[in-house]
Amino acid sequence: MKILEGKIFTDIKGYKACGISAGLKKSKKKDFCIMISEVPAVSAATFTTNKVKAAPVLLNMEHIKNSNTQAIVVNSGNANACTGETGLKNAYKMAELTASSLNLVSQEVLVGSTGVIGVPLPMDKITYGIIESCKNLSYNGGFDAAKAIMTTDTFQKTVMVETEINGKNILIGGIAKGSGMIHPNMATMFSFIFTDAKISKEMLQKALSESVDLSYNMVSVDGDTSTNDMVIALANGMADNDEINKDGQAFHSFKEALHLANTTLSKYIAKDGEGATKLLEVNLKGARTEKDAKLCAKSIITSSLVKSAFFGSDANWGRIMCALGYSKGDFDPDKVDVTFINKIGELQLVKNGCGADFDEALAKEILDQDTINIYIDLKDGEYSAKAWGCDLTYDYVKINGMYRT
Amino acid sequence: MKILEGKIFTDIKGYKACGISAGLKKSKKKDFCIMISEVPAVSAATFTTNKVKAAPVLLNMEHIKNSNTQAIVVNSGNANACTGETGLKNAYKMAELTASSLNLVSQEVLVGSTGVIGVPLPMDKITYGIIESCKNLSYNGGFDAAKAIMTTDTFQKTVMVETEINGKNILIGGIAKGSGMIHPNMATMFSFIFTDAKISKEMLQKALSESVDLSYNMVSVDGDTSTNDMVIALANGMADNDEINKDGQAFHSFKEALHLANTTLSKYIAKDGEGATKLLEVNLKGARTEKDAKLCAKSIITSSLVKSAFFGSDANWGRIMCALGYSKGDFDPDKVDVTFINKIGELQLVKNGCGADFDEALAKEILDQDTINIYIDLKDGEYSAKAWGCDLTYDYVKINGMYRT
Repeated sequence: MKILEGKIFTDIKGYKACGISAGLKKSKKKDFCIMISEVPAVSAATFTTNKVKAAPVLLNMEHIKNSNTQAIVVNSGNANACTGETGLKNAYKMAELTASSLNLVSQEVLVGSTGVIGVPLPMDKITYGIIESCKNLSYNGGFDAAKAIMTTDTFQKTVMVETEINGKNILIGGIAKGSGMIHPNMATMFSFIFTDAKISKEMLQKALSESVDLSYNMVSVDGDTSTNDMVIALANGMADNDEINKDGQAFHSFKEALHLANTTLSKYIAKDGEGATKLLEVNLKGARTEKDAKLCAKSIITSSLVKSAFFGSDANWGRIMCALGYSKGDFDPDKVDVTFINKIGELQLVKNGCGADFDEALAKEILDQDTINIYIDLKDGEYSAKAWGCDLTYDYVKINGMYRT
Repeated sequence: MKILEGKIFTDIKGYKACGISAGLKKSKKKDFCIMISEVPAVSAATFTTNKVKAAPVLLNMEHIKNSNTQAIVVNSGNANACTGETGLKNAYKMAELTASSLNLVSQEVLVGSTGVIGVPLPMDKITYGIIESCKNLSYNGGFDAAKAIMTTDTFQKTVMVETEINGKNILIGGIAKGSGMIHPNMATMFSFIFTDAKISKEMLQKALSESVDLSYNMVSVDGDTSTNDMVIALANGMADNDEINKDGQAFHSFKEALHLANTTLSKYIAKDGEGATKLLEVNLKGARTEKDAKLCAKSIITSSLVKSAFFGSDANWGRIMCALGYSKGDFDPDKVDVTFINKIGELQLVKNGCGADFDEALAKEILDQDTINIYIDLKDGEYSAKAWGCDLTYDYVKINGMYRT
């Protein structure tokens, strides 16, 4: 299993894409894309847990039940959320138009929208986007699609993982977007995953759900869970492996590769959090249960005070202890160890719940780097968890104070 | 029942205080105070729910059980949290020294500490503070005490409420501090309340707990629940009313006055959130249950995206809908109305879950004020809740990126 640098999902057999500007973004940047499998594919998905669900999420929750999924149509610049019945009709229209342009039925199309909430979707631009994109689908369109789904992202997020299953080479490629409203609790952004593996719909869903829980759901940029977020995976079977249709070695290998793709994209999303200058990775071990491990790790990465301290390169470990304390995870405060690690070195700040004597100059040097690993040992059990986040900066406030205007 | 402007708790019969600089703050600002009742008093308190509890919180959880409480000793500049056994010994020493200086027993003294976490309490300065403060206790010391408990607060927070119970005049005075690490879930800062009412310990605790739940616990500055926070109330009975020892009209009147004091201090805390430029008040009605009302109101006030939008005077009501959606409160998204109100006027932004046509210029004018009321009607039931918060600004990040250094 390895990551292939510079590859994109349209390098996988049977996948095409197109990303264009349909005029939804004032900036004229790309804002529309269609991604397809040329042959029938099974799909799986996880959706936002927000009670206020955008129209495309409601549509996908129906269409995902279909045995065949061949196209995903996505616009950025407008979320089609809080748009009432008209919004829902527009989402269905988006799927229908795409389906008819591609000779599919509507149920074989999934829809994504991201951007400002509460503004009706400009259907003239959407229609233009569908027609133009369908005309220009190509095996080189993957990177354009990755660009078209971006909003305040500063870089495009792509990954390709290669693995071998029962003697066959399998590729899993994905694209994702962040970068505000990112918080644990499925699905905290867009991620679209494409694979040539042959796998049953049921097992694809199982692999995706289990992986999402430990990847995207362990990312927090700002504690807000969006109305629109989704992870979708398509598997078109073109690798011609024996179908993965039960738990076992083949399923395990597939899930491991899928999880590598998902955690890689998760880190990119955390690193590209709105205004972020630093990637924070929490590695927590020694928890009594898996739930405790996840609650504790997530709480640290979600704390505004912790995030601000990292921005200021302030080794304020007290805020980490405080965030552990209100996490609702169970642990013994008097056993906790906290260590920062990165390429500069390793520095223990907390030993058995109390401040360790540490070198402030070294702490500053470690904290001035763009990636910091926060190692927590609760010394209280066998369970561990990882979580990813970023610092809270002036630019976060700037971006989010002025987003709509 | 009314608020008396310009009055302070040492204007109530039997209360004295002193606030000085004991050298804990580098700035030489006041950082130490003692507040006493000259006569025996009953006490009640609520403490932080953080699992990592500072030493003074652990001490108070014991001492609060005592039938008599006559002194509260508080330092700012050092939280005495994550300081292990030495920290706990230091907290007990702080109580003992204060008790012996005042001819009390240790159990009659409560302790508060606030400031940086994980640094041992400088006991020489604490000892100096106790001796000096005990010497200088006076009926004019209340405002000095209010100053001495401040950390990053920009103004002192005091309140005095007068009410009549069974023909007797009752005073309830309080001081409080914010202003970071402020988040729902008891007790999210310091608040010390003093009254001359005669009330049983049990009923004082009942009134305090019920009020705290709907005042301090409905404030959020940054989503962090501190290790040190507490609300303490003393009642010394000098108003000579018939003792309030059961639920009834007198208890109701007392609780109402106490709640006015607590909500007033809560608003000050929200308004003075770190870096805040605006006070946000959420008035939510029409919820199915009280729990739903509180969850929905709190979620709005806690959202970093909502807070940033208010900083930028951006009428981004979509973020309010989004925060309602992930609140875990139950409601029907298609019924929600959202209206902004303040002295400029009233503006409906959301009607039945969708964007209302509104005047952007008027929205901007309303949002440029320093107080904004966010009225939410879920139109789904009889329950309501209020919550208070502030905007998220560049200065929040600045203050918290550089706090420890």
